[in-house]
Amino acid sequence: MIGKNSKYPVVPGHEIVGRVVAVGKDVKNHKKDDLVGVGCMVDSCQECSACKDDLEQFCEKGMVATYNGKDKHMGGHTFGGYSEMIIVREEFVLSVPKNLDEKAVAPLLCAGITTYSPLAHWKIKKGDKVGVIGLGGLGHMGIKFADAMGAHVVMITTSPEKAGDAKSLGADEVLISKDEDAMKKHAGSFDFLLNTVPVKHDVNPYLQLLKRDSTMVMVGAIEPLEPMHGGNLIIGRKSIAGSLIGGIKETQEMLDFCGEHNIVSDIELIDIDTINTAYQRVKDSDVKYRFVIDMESLN
Amino acid sequence: MIGKNSKYPVVPGHEIVGRVVAVGKDVKNHKKDDLVGVGCMVDSCQECSACKDDLEQFCEKGMVATYNGKDKHMGGHTFGGYSEMIIVREEFVLSVPKNLDEKAVAPLLCAGITTYSPLAHWKIKKGDKVGVIGLGGLGHMGIKFADAMGAHVVMITTSPEKAGDAKSLGADEVLISKDEDAMKKHAGSFDFLLNTVPVKHDVNPYLQLLKRDSTMVMVGAIEPLEPMHGGNLIIGRKSIAGSLIGGIKETQEMLDFCGEHNIVSDIELIDIDTINTAYQRVKDSDVKYRFVIDMESLN
Repeated sequence: MIGKNSKYPVVPGHEIVGRVVAVGKDVKNHKKDDLVGVGCMVDSCQECSACKDDLEQFCEKGMVATYNGKDKHMGGHTFGGYSEMIIVREEFVLSVPKNLDEKAVAPLLCAGITTYSPLAHWKIKKGDKVGVIGLGGLGHMGIKFADAMGAHVVMITTSPEKAGDAKSLGADEVLISKDEDAMKKHAGSFDFLLNTVPVKHDVNPYLQLLKRDSTMVMVGAIEPLEPMHGGNLIIGRKSIAGSLIGGIKETQEMLDFCGEHNIVSDIELIDIDTINTAYQRVKDSDVKYRFVIDMESLN
Repeated sequence: MIGKNSKYPVVPGHEIVGRVVAVGKDVKNHKKDDLVGVGCMVDSCQECSACKDDLEQFCEKGMVATYNGKDKHMGGHTFGGYSEMIIVREEFVLSVPKNLDEKAVAPLLCAGITTYSPLAHWKIKKGDKVGVIGLGGLGHMGIKFADAMGAHVVMITTSPEKAGDAKSLGADEVLISKDEDAMKKHAGSFDFLLNTVPVKHDVNPYLQLLKRDSTMVMVGAIEPLEPMHGGNLIIGRKSIAGSLIGGIKETQEMLDFCGEHNIVSDIELIDIDTINTAYQRVKDSDVKYRFVIDMESLN
């Protein structure tokens, strides 16, 4: 995210896929020409309890973000992935399954792991009724993963016009959250909700969709929510939780899962000289569902 | 709670302890002269998935509250416990351990189970760092239970003057939530938080006290909270959950636990003709920590 806190220069991408051009002499897991990925992190302390639990995203000394992070090795800050090349320690380099369409793999490294991780951590299984709230870059991956895990997937959206797309992505049903009657019919019926809405919103109607002892996980809302009613948690012993990307081990598991199930992101490939148009289209929600920049177009 | 939704007549108590005066011919678990308790519920469908899971408080057909509930057997509504006598189906009658001070047992039936249930459900164990937020009728029981479970108990309060009492109830430490430096020192260190605050408040500072993958459970706030920041859940994969009293089986377990650990509520015994004064003192937070009405004083 580029904003007032940005450190320049910055080339912000953190969903990066490419071929290895060279490896250090001690590198064991990757070799020249391998198709690999780099996500939101390029380093962590590797020693704290979070790192030992394979949750480097919660490193107690702070993980090093792929851009705007503090570069412990070179000094200064990390630049990001919209570049010809990036140097990353091998522990933070992921292997991309050979059968996947490499143009559409990059968004798995953030949008993918952000939605896969909570579905895996909360142990979604065949037959669970899973709601994915919001159909954008994150939501479209959430549908694909929940569907591949065997869940009965309900796309929950304010936009009836998204119903067709949701179903072709793998949703079994579409629930229009503005339709109070439809919301009532689904009340108390969900085993899990994955909330991908990135902005302030009212979570109370969604909490009423949950079964007793079930959880809604927030992955997008990095700002204050509308006031939540305590009673919506107390009645039915419900939970609301958060989840942030995933650790490196789980990110590799996610990529392997994608290999098995032939899952990639739905993307539109663009050349670097069209990014201003693309940026405006992202702001207008006019992308299905991620732009991927062909870095060859830099040449 | 008496309010605009009350059905009259009503004698609202739902923390009731007394001796059995008579049993029906098919009653197996209780006999004349037994010391027994009745809590917040007197009936449920006994057939739905919640009832089968021993969570009658979440009965899908609606549990029957001890007052203002719909009386399926007699018609009309249930009246409550500030009375000489109450007739209850045996499944909803609890056995009181003989070693407990019977004057101080009644509050276990609501304040007790409300705090015991989340500590038991979230498996609090020896050595866990548990914060109890708010020192009132619920909070004082939360301290006693968490202490008896072997936790390192921290009383979290806005009121420094409550520190002494908190420690004599079993708290190992007292954290003044208005003290920002103290809050920072405890950041990310709690395995569990039991939030007993009954009114609208800001949960964000408490969420920052939790360790990664830990939970704050709300048992008191039956109104909208101040806006919660999604980032406080996302960073550290934290949860906020709710909990409502407990099922009958767990209520009996709680009473048995109290018997083993000699736990009762701290109470002030009053005669029925002083309830108006007592009510005002409750409103003024001037009670340590529950008034108990001696129903003999009705005679």
